[in-house]
Amino acid sequence: MDFLKKANDLMPVLREKTVRPTSGMPEADKLMREGDCFLLDFGSHFVGHLTLRLDVKRPGDDAADAPLAVEFRFFENLCEDTGKPYTGGLSSSWLQVANLLVDDPYAPIVLPRRYAFRYVKIRFTTNTSYSVVYRDCFVKAVTSGDEALVEPLPEGTDPLLARIDKAGVLTLRDCMQQVFEDGPKRDRRLWLGDLYLQAKTNYYTFKNNDLVLRCLYLFAGLAHEDGCLSSAVFHEPVLKKQSWILHDYALFFIGVLADYYRATGRDDVVKELWPTALRQTEIAYKAFLDAGRRANTDLYFIDWCPALDKSCAALGIIVSMLKEALFLADIAGTSEEKLALKERIDGVSPALIGLYDKSLSLFRGVSGQLSIHSQMWAVLAGVLDAAEETNVMRATLKTAMVDPVTPYAMHYYAEALIKAGLKDEAFSLIRCHWGGMLERGCDCFPEVYVPGDREASPYGDVTINSFCHAWSCTPSYFIRKYQVGY
Amino acid sequence: MDFLKKANDLMPVLREKTVRPTSGMPEADKLMREGDCFLLDFGSHFVGHLTLRLDVKRPGDDAADAPLAVEFRFFENLCEDTGKPYTGGLSSSWLQVANLLVDDPYAPIVLPRRYAFRYVKIRFTTNTSYSVVYRDCFVKAVTSGDEALVEPLPEGTDPLLARIDKAGVLTLRDCMQQVFEDGPKRDRRLWLGDLYLQAKTNYYTFKNNDLVLRCLYLFAGLAHEDGCLSSAVFHEPVLKKQSWILHDYALFFIGVLADYYRATGRDDVVKELWPTALRQTEIAYKAFLDAGRRANTDLYFIDWCPALDKSCAALGIIVSMLKEALFLADIAGTSEEKLALKERIDGVSPALIGLYDKSLSLFRGVSGQLSIHSQMWAVLAGVLDAAEETNVMRATLKTAMVDPVTPYAMHYYAEALIKAGLKDEAFSLIRCHWGGMLERGCDCFPEVYVPGDREASPYGDVTINSFCHAWSCTPSYFIRKYQVGY
Repeated sequence: MDFLKKANDLMPVLREKTVRPTSGMPEADKLMREGDCFLLDFGSHFVGHLTLRLDVKRPGDDAADAPLAVEFRFFENLCEDTGKPYTGGLSSSWLQVANLLVDDPYAPIVLPRRYAFRYVKIRFTTNTSYSVVYRDCFVKAVTSGDEALVEPLPEGTDPLLARIDKAGVLTLRDCMQQVFEDGPKRDRRLWLGDLYLQAKTNYYTFKNNDLVLRCLYLFAGLAHEDGCLSSAVFHEPVLKKQSWILHDYALFFIGVLADYYRATGRDDVVKELWPTALRQTEIAYKAFLDAGRRANTDLYFIDWCPALDKSCAALGIIVSMLKEALFLADIAGTSEEKLALKERIDGVSPALIGLYDKSLSLFRGVSGQLSIHSQMWAVLAGVLDAAEETNVMRATLKTAMVDPVTPYAMHYYAEALIKAGLKDEAFSLIRCHWGGMLERGCDCFPEVYVPGDREASPYGDVTINSFCHAWSCTPSYFIRKYQVGY
Repeated sequence: MDFLKKANDLMPVLREKTVRPTSGMPEADKLMREGDCFLLDFGSHFVGHLTLRLDVKRPGDDAADAPLAVEFRFFENLCEDTGKPYTGGLSSSWLQVANLLVDDPYAPIVLPRRYAFRYVKIRFTTNTSYSVVYRDCFVKAVTSGDEALVEPLPEGTDPLLARIDKAGVLTLRDCMQQVFEDGPKRDRRLWLGDLYLQAKTNYYTFKNNDLVLRCLYLFAGLAHEDGCLSSAVFHEPVLKKQSWILHDYALFFIGVLADYYRATGRDDVVKELWPTALRQTEIAYKAFLDAGRRANTDLYFIDWCPALDKSCAALGIIVSMLKEALFLADIAGTSEEKLALKERIDGVSPALIGLYDKSLSLFRGVSGQLSIHSQMWAVLAGVLDAAEETNVMRATLKTAMVDPVTPYAMHYYAEALIKAGLKDEAFSLIRCHWGGMLERGCDCFPEVYVPGDREASPYGDVTINSFCHAWSCTPSYFIRKYQVGY
């Protein structure tokens, strides 16, 4: 079973589409020189390769006698155009800038790198004895998603939900490249946590099931020595596992595989990847026992919230994924394996139930902290009865507590509301949360959204945030699965 | 006669040589990050394409998780590394800088542009979570000169002259590309004034006579409507004549053609290009008459000296080139054309002789100014008898007057000394002038050399000067023709 070879055999062909800006183009006869600048708006977010065409105008019809210096700055969102020095913690080399010296300003200027953007600011930065005029600009936009396969929403769909769906589909499209990338601007990496949500949305939109399978193979083929899966895989510039281990992400492999089976019915794939999936439950359960029947929260991501008590949410994820493993065991597991899984579920569930504050109908972290994260994962784990889960989610809606800061965590909040029978409340949340992003002028959904704080960034500088981020695409899943009923 | 097609058929194949730095390489295990910098010295001047190879080192053996930002600055001469803002008049896009964002720091970093340099300063400019180590760096050096054809100087050649010759040969080599470029760092253009001197040196070194012919065809094929030749031809990014007309440069076409005939004996080429050559004499002579039997000095370059009175030197050039035309007329001209040329020589010579101050044995400009330029061009015009020419050049050596600032003008000074029988004085000049450049640590000869003024620049900033400049290569011509006697 050479998983990496199988992953490679599933390498998608990228679809290419030529797109031109919709506004911001200089007049055809405008002579531009040092300091001149224009901002092209492509009307929507795209990922791809830019070409700019200029022409040279010089007195006496002389040729351009020196290279042309051009600066390109690409923005997914205009808030990236601060003009201030960068102060973030992540490498500033992710900021999408190109400073080119162009030997031939007559020829198309083809930028060698791939960019993720809606806007591009083009500035001429050196004195030249000639001027240039604008001729053309286009992006060759790339994606491994086939837009023709995305079914249109029915006539009469609520306009706000239709807009939200459009942005979700666009977000997923631009993150679908050779793998499901987390963000096409920054990281460009295959993360298990992102993949879980991307794959869910993919089944209701682009239906590129082979891309999900390719990503499953990549994770399986790049497991650590003890069988634990990496939180992420680098697919460029070199194919390599990431050393950082997150148990929630490793467990989500089970969820991705279970969803893949539900979408495709391919039990051959389940059987092939079953040992990998099962191994994640063993590792997470051993860590639970080693920590004294608690989750080792250092090994869980959950959300970017500072000072979040992850203890309850982590247990909720373990139980949820143990139950998904049991679902897969019916296809691929032995009776001993099923028994072992049930024992693990019975081992972890009491620790989770032990965090339930029945007086409030809310779960607490071991520190006593109340957070939405605890409620949603406890409900998704299904350790209470249905009526009590509804109580938990109703109480959650009414109680002030630690809120999710990422659309990623917000996804599980909406999912838990739906599981608890509160579909209207889930859709109110979607309208409010993802609709709020649209009100900020987004075409697609960002990595971080904190209402009232446009500068929020986990990295210390909003300009490094990813404004088209995979884990934020799931409204299209909710709308198409629960509203439209595809 | 499609001159441009013929020029294109003579497009040279560039010879490529891989050269590695001789010093400045970081230790193989030195970890480098943001702010780290090293200066590679390639030991000599080269023109070509650079490749840098690095490797990535990251804790946990993780892959590089962000692009690598690298700044390359290329220097022909370390005086270009000022760190000060550029203040010159020419386009700063000629400064040889590359700011790259490298998506794959594991792969060879191949810079797309051609550079002219001995030194390259490489600096890592963004924070990354990984370090890089140095693996390799090389330049694929290119030239259309075949070094195997350059005869070594005889054993026992004076060491200073041998060093000067080596730098002259190197200067010419690096300016020999698809055309004879003026400077491979800046302009990269085919100028008639530079070509005249490059071709002279070429016959005694690289013997790439086809490259001379190609350049003659380019000028002939890109003449202005009235038949006047351009001062220069752009050969990249587009093949185009330069609108700027210089009568001295246009007249030098005759000199280049005459020298080409002397080197090759090809009277077919002389016959083919004779109408073009003859036309330059008609145009210059008409301008002389129109100006009231003076040279229209606005149309003459002569040298970069500020406030130079060019009137005498310009007349000297007209007479010199009329005489070269008469030489060519013996091969290709009609008797009427010869007669017309003689009439033109007889027309201009008296105006030149009229500027002779017999009391000083020196020529003056019409303003009365004394300059070396006036003396050398009057002597090269041959309007006095041989003994009187010797007097002029002896007086020149002893009298304070306006000096040449370019090795280009200095060439004609040395040539005039030799013509006047003062070969030793010519070689003293060569030792002093071009030897002085070597004392500044040059590997090749620069565009501008003013003893005692390292900051001298016709452009307001020494960093934009060309430090490997075609018109400065002629010591190799003098040494090989007059000293070695090849």
